[in-house]
Amino acid sequence: MSADDERRVTITAIAREAGVSVPTVSRVLNGRSDVAPDTRERVEELLRHHGYRRRGSRTVRRADLLDLVFPDLDSPWAVEIIRGVEDVGHAAGVGTVVSAIHRRSTSTRQWLQNLRSRASDGVIVVTSHLTSPVQAQLRRLNVPIVVVDPAGTTTTDVPTIGATNWAGGMAATEHLLALGHRRIGFVAGPSDLLCSRARLDGYRAALERAGVPLDDRLVQPGDFYHAAGFAGGAALLELDDPPTAIFAASDQMAFGVYEAVRRRGLRVADDVSVVGFDDLPEARWASPPLTTVRQPLVEMGRLAARTVLRLSQGEEIESPRIELATELVVRDSSAAYR
Amino acid sequence: MSADDERRVTITAIAREAGVSVPTVSRVLNGRSDVAPDTRERVEELLRHHGYRRRGSRTVRRADLLDLVFPDLDSPWAVEIIRGVEDVGHAAGVGTVVSAIHRRSTSTRQWLQNLRSRASDGVIVVTSHLTSPVQAQLRRLNVPIVVVDPAGTTTTDVPTIGATNWAGGMAATEHLLALGHRRIGFVAGPSDLLCSRARLDGYRAALERAGVPLDDRLVQPGDFYHAAGFAGGAALLELDDPPTAIFAASDQMAFGVYEAVRRRGLRVADDVSVVGFDDLPEARWASPPLTTVRQPLVEMGRLAARTVLRLSQGEEIESPRIELATELVVRDSSAAYR
Repeated sequence: MSADDERRVTITAIAREAGVSVPTVSRVLNGRSDVAPDTRERVEELLRHHGYRRRGSRTVRRADLLDLVFPDLDSPWAVEIIRGVEDVGHAAGVGTVVSAIHRRSTSTRQWLQNLRSRASDGVIVVTSHLTSPVQAQLRRLNVPIVVVDPAGTTTTDVPTIGATNWAGGMAATEHLLALGHRRIGFVAGPSDLLCSRARLDGYRAALERAGVPLDDRLVQPGDFYHAAGFAGGAALLELDDPPTAIFAASDQMAFGVYEAVRRRGLRVADDVSVVGFDDLPEARWASPPLTTVRQPLVEMGRLAARTVLRLSQGEEIESPRIELATELVVRDSSAAYR
Repeated sequence: MSADDERRVTITAIAREAGVSVPTVSRVLNGRSDVAPDTRERVEELLRHHGYRRRGSRTVRRADLLDLVFPDLDSPWAVEIIRGVEDVGHAAGVGTVVSAIHRRSTSTRQWLQNLRSRASDGVIVVTSHLTSPVQAQLRRLNVPIVVVDPAGTTTTDVPTIGATNWAGGMAATEHLLALGHRRIGFVAGPSDLLCSRARLDGYRAALERAGVPLDDRLVQPGDFYHAAGFAGGAALLELDDPPTAIFAASDQMAFGVYEAVRRRGLRVADDVSVVGFDDLPEARWASPPLTTVRQPLVEMGRLAARTVLRLSQGEEIESPRIELATELVVRDSSAAYR
């Protein structure tokens, strides 16, 4: 019995079990809209249950599309990840459909509907907060899913690609310690994200290893956005014994710290060293150019695309969670302690 | 005779004229790959010649996809335009396929092949340099095309969406004149783009209206990128009689001017006023936040998507070239002359 025959048997078996015709199962597999919702759900459930693979069978249409989904398209990460995914998709002759869930539930429904009728070969979700209902609905679509999660949540049961946040936090802090700084402020990310915790722990570990006592007043809350960096930076500079260097857990917050430094009539680097985290393109254009911890966002996008394409061809992947290395990029915003 | 009959007659006529079967014409219309290249070209040529419209006929498959194409995805404009297009596409249940031509000819061929096999409902090209061969090949695909051209070239014969560059250049310069500046430097965009010329002419017109003599030494060449802003800013500040304000023809060049000001030990706003052009999200995060001329990039993306969807439904559009209004956004980088 050839592989093709085996497929056909499986579709036949599924049609029998679902109490529908073989063409109906084909219509579901091809993502066509002329199937009653109940029937579709029953067939999809059975396809999933029996581990039926859409691809690797010549009887099944390839859409040659990947879906790349963001919570919103205003994230400064977005275009970097799109570049990585598009690059791999382009080479494979697969189009990259970019969309945003827009954080509204009606919008999510519409988006899932669009996704279903496209019958994409795979879905890459960029998020730190994939709600359980959306996860469940995505699973029911019976397409491979990979999560790109710069924030480092580990609660999903789908393959996830992240970066080494703890090591990055440590590298940034050790850089400032090596420049002679001892009072180093920290503006944190959102407290409910694991990546925020990992970056903070990296900062603390570096200080402890250097024998520098921890001072809780030097740690300010934040949320990765500009305004929080400005507020945290201003609060740190108002201390009686202000820090001589500030490590912000995102580039955007580092730019907020720049503005807090400027408003106090001080200068970045000359008076206060500043280090960020992300290495967005804007880091190079900042004045002074920002020393920061590079997250390899383009590479994360590339790896996600390769992984989802491999899954769509029925390959197994090695590990459910892959973390790519972060890297310190030294520019002009950090200077020796004077 | 119903509209559907009329369609069928047309397909029949085209099949006869091309010397192929009706199903072959259908296969071409549906973007299937099992048609010989010669045959496809002949059929597509005839479809175009007879003004056959892919859409509006229920016998033709709708892909429910829009293609959004950039020369490269490293443009700071990209994500803004994607947001606008995705927003309209999402609401219409149409997926946005984002891709980059990557400026390599092999890549262009691959991209045109991918586009053809997807059989998109329409193509939005974001560019200032759409080469004639690519234009010709796009036309042969027989899908509606709209060009989003922030740079303002007018040589295409397809609908184009741009912004009011001359008015923007004038508004920026008048703002600096109103603050009391008389020596106002200008860092220009690439000289081969019409938008660069329009912004420069706007700058000159504002000076002339205010009775301020033009000084060619105050105009520096540029290319919209950071390094050119830095070089142009540095050259202006080295003049014996340096300007007290600098208008850069792009935000990225304005950030380069910031760095030139900083390297001279001066301060933006306090010592030198700086105004940009674009209003990228980074303009808000700069330190100080950048006064700039806003190009409505998201709205340009929205309008492009609406236009291409209308064309794909066989509607006529009003004007081949639409310019959306630019708007001056005053922040903290421009201050009164002292």
